[in-house]
Amino acid sequence: MNFNTILKPLILILFFVALCMFFPIVVALYYDEPAALKSFFSVMISVATICAVSFYFLRHSQIHRIAVRESFVLVVLCWVSISFISALPYYISGAIPNFSEAFFETVSGFSTTGATILTDIEALPKSMLFWRSLTHWLGGMGIIVLAVAVLPLLGVGGLQLLKAEAPGPTVDKISPRISETAKTLWGIYVGLTVVEAMLLNFAGMPYFDAFNHAFATIATGGFSPKNASVGAYNSPFIEWIVIVFMILAGMSFTLHYKIITGRAKQIFKNTELKVYLAVIAIGTIIVAHSLLYHKLYSVHGSIRQAMFQVVSILTTTGFATADYKQWPPFAQYIIFLLMFAGACSGSTSGGVKLIRIVTLMKLAINELKYLVHPKAIMTIFIDGNVVKKDMIYSISAFVFLYAVCVLTTACICAASGVSVLTAFTAALSTVGNIGPGFGRIGPVENYHFFKDWVKWFLSAAMIMGRLEVFTVMVIFIRAFWKK
Amino acid sequence: MNFNTILKPLILILFFVALCMFFPIVVALYYDEPAALKSFFSVMISVATICAVSFYFLRHSQIHRIAVRESFVLVVLCWVSISFISALPYYISGAIPNFSEAFFETVSGFSTTGATILTDIEALPKSMLFWRSLTHWLGGMGIIVLAVAVLPLLGVGGLQLLKAEAPGPTVDKISPRISETAKTLWGIYVGLTVVEAMLLNFAGMPYFDAFNHAFATIATGGFSPKNASVGAYNSPFIEWIVIVFMILAGMSFTLHYKIITGRAKQIFKNTELKVYLAVIAIGTIIVAHSLLYHKLYSVHGSIRQAMFQVVSILTTTGFATADYKQWPPFAQYIIFLLMFAGACSGSTSGGVKLIRIVTLMKLAINELKYLVHPKAIMTIFIDGNVVKKDMIYSISAFVFLYAVCVLTTACICAASGVSVLTAFTAALSTVGNIGPGFGRIGPVENYHFFKDWVKWFLSAAMIMGRLEVFTVMVIFIRAFWKK
Repeated sequence: MNFNTILKPLILILFFVALCMFFPIVVALYYDEPAALKSFFSVMISVATICAVSFYFLRHSQIHRIAVRESFVLVVLCWVSISFISALPYYISGAIPNFSEAFFETVSGFSTTGATILTDIEALPKSMLFWRSLTHWLGGMGIIVLAVAVLPLLGVGGLQLLKAEAPGPTVDKISPRISETAKTLWGIYVGLTVVEAMLLNFAGMPYFDAFNHAFATIATGGFSPKNASVGAYNSPFIEWIVIVFMILAGMSFTLHYKIITGRAKQIFKNTELKVYLAVIAIGTIIVAHSLLYHKLYSVHGSIRQAMFQVVSILTTTGFATADYKQWPPFAQYIIFLLMFAGACSGSTSGGVKLIRIVTLMKLAINELKYLVHPKAIMTIFIDGNVVKKDMIYSISAFVFLYAVCVLTTACICAASGVSVLTAFTAALSTVGNIGPGFGRIGPVENYHFFKDWVKWFLSAAMIMGRLEVFTVMVIFIRAFWKK
Repeated sequence: MNFNTILKPLILILFFVALCMFFPIVVALYYDEPAALKSFFSVMISVATICAVSFYFLRHSQIHRIAVRESFVLVVLCWVSISFISALPYYISGAIPNFSEAFFETVSGFSTTGATILTDIEALPKSMLFWRSLTHWLGGMGIIVLAVAVLPLLGVGGLQLLKAEAPGPTVDKISPRISETAKTLWGIYVGLTVVEAMLLNFAGMPYFDAFNHAFATIATGGFSPKNASVGAYNSPFIEWIVIVFMILAGMSFTLHYKIITGRAKQIFKNTELKVYLAVIAIGTIIVAHSLLYHKLYSVHGSIRQAMFQVVSILTTTGFATADYKQWPPFAQYIIFLLMFAGACSGSTSGGVKLIRIVTLMKLAINELKYLVHPKAIMTIFIDGNVVKKDMIYSISAFVFLYAVCVLTTACICAASGVSVLTAFTAALSTVGNIGPGFGRIGPVENYHFFKDWVKWFLSAAMIMGRLEVFTVMVIFIRAFWKK
């Protein structure tokens, strides 16, 4: 392990995050928030200075090509250290006076989880709220690049499937080079954000709120500057806009690229997309039917509320327009069920991701056929390409480790004294980067009541889930550190 | 599909089950229960007659060797039809006047689940209670043979692993021939039952109760003739006896054979057994610590209560000596966690079985190593033997289908209007053949409140889980019925 090699990129990323504090500084100036301004400014200046000085001292150290092993450490260190420095403004300004909570909130931001410890969100200075949403957006940006470009190279992540499918590495990758890929994807990411913010503003949301919600939507995060989340506006138009953009954010960003470059037809051959849209449709129909049956809303209201919550949970965004804990049990259960899924690989969503579930489903059907025809040789196809055997191992192992991660996190929560339901769904929700759950962490509740030491474990769970479990766990095996 | 081929064995098995009603008839005579006597007698005579007549008409039909396909249908039909005829005495005598409930109770018996719809168990005639426990015992007997001898031949079940491990098929099988194997295993099964009943009687339990509890223990069933289950006797000695025999029943019966034939040393090389004992030990320590910490019982009381409930849930027995729903959340969560596991393959216990979890754990560790050494060739060893690749597919597919089964069953429960926690744990408990759960189906509650149509689905779930999911699901795929 050559720590010098990873130091330079790490410092660069920290420097970049510090520079991003320029935006909340502008907001603080605009809304005249001196305490917030001071804390952002001091953190920005000190971090940027330390980074610059460190970089100066490292200027003669040669940049080696980063090996696979170092990449894992770099990715994990990045996520932890940017969360650390980004939590400082909350803490220093006193907006979140407890550092465990400030760190939790920041990890929840960067991991695009959206779980909050804030009881009164609107009491925070506007600049803090903006920074909160911005951590989502930056985290989402990082994830897009990680998921589409970096992790597959390391052998981790859902999109690795695409690598296995195609004869060459470039067929379903946008571009073979990471930097080019990143630029293209970021273009799409920025574009979607701006379009959503404009539409939300057009629908009656103030610019500040519009951008905050757009950041949280495209990152499938879920932080809202309002206590009542998207429900605060009581506007069906706004809710439909958010629904559409949550769906777009849950799609693989490589598909957006295809649409832009006029290959829209190709995307309908995409199995994962078809399953994704089918799950949304079926989930919405069941939940809407249940809501209508119990006469909770009008017809349009039922469909909208059902679709909003279904899409919000499936894409692991976590916005709310209704308290689903007050819904009929069947509707609640569908929401609970969706917490196990996640949306498409290559998106900003968390969770297991549908492509893995589809692959395991195909494996299971093959195994059933195999019982009838023990001598047949079965192959799994996805999008017309053969799924390699190694990929099936990798997926099985992923789902297993994911489950271990969820059950361990739940165990820690339960040890702190919360009920089985709260513990289990808090674990599902943090590892899956969703946000709300059931029990004491429903969509109108928050994570404030958890003991401080539990918040650190939940922060770790969010990072674990965000980095596809493997990336973090590999660092803890002995083989990783052996020469 | 040649239905004639499976008709003869099916009729024989039904005939055998009808003859078994001789035992509750003796009990009914002894305790002078005329209504129960009449119903058992009429069902026994009519079923036996119908079977005999059918057999007479089929006497010229040649017995073909039962093919793999027919075996699946036979196994499933067996389980369904014996449950059907065995539910009749409850229904006819009016002991359980609702046939949905009578069928549920019988399936719960034969599948060794132990979930009951009875609110006042002790109100039932003694002969009915005896029949109820006997269904456990017969079901357990069937499962031992199925799990150790029949299912592995069909390519289903945890013990298939042993087939994959050993160079020849006889190393870890007791005997290559099913009938011999069955005799040996049944000998052990009967022996364990008699020894436990004697010990329980010695500890102060009346003979009737002692045999009922012994039937339910060795079958890892969980039906008790007492409303308060094993807790009714308030006797630590009895509880320790039941704990020991639950542990023995959760072990692979091939291991018992080894002990009897003086190969006791070999069993300590058995990975699954080591994991099984470790899980019991760790589970007990955590739960006992939690109980002690909250000062619910004395030191000995905490250890005994903890161990009883841990073993009861892990072995999927479902006996209770305490209401764990009143325990601290951490202790509750450990119980919840154990519901995902199950005990050893080749035992009468249900659930996923530990060997599958161990294999997936080893796969996951290998995959992590693979990320660091992408060119290494990794092999999974269990008990010193290589696990074949096909076996890993089979296990992954099993766990996936098991999860689908649990989540679908929970969905049906939720659709009937029960809470997420009740629905989810009812599904875990029925598919895993455990018995109690959380929410409204705690260890001192029952399944009576479920709507009748839900009870049919839960009955299906119990059979599904009992027959290792594959056996039932394979019948529902198109390839199964194609020529």
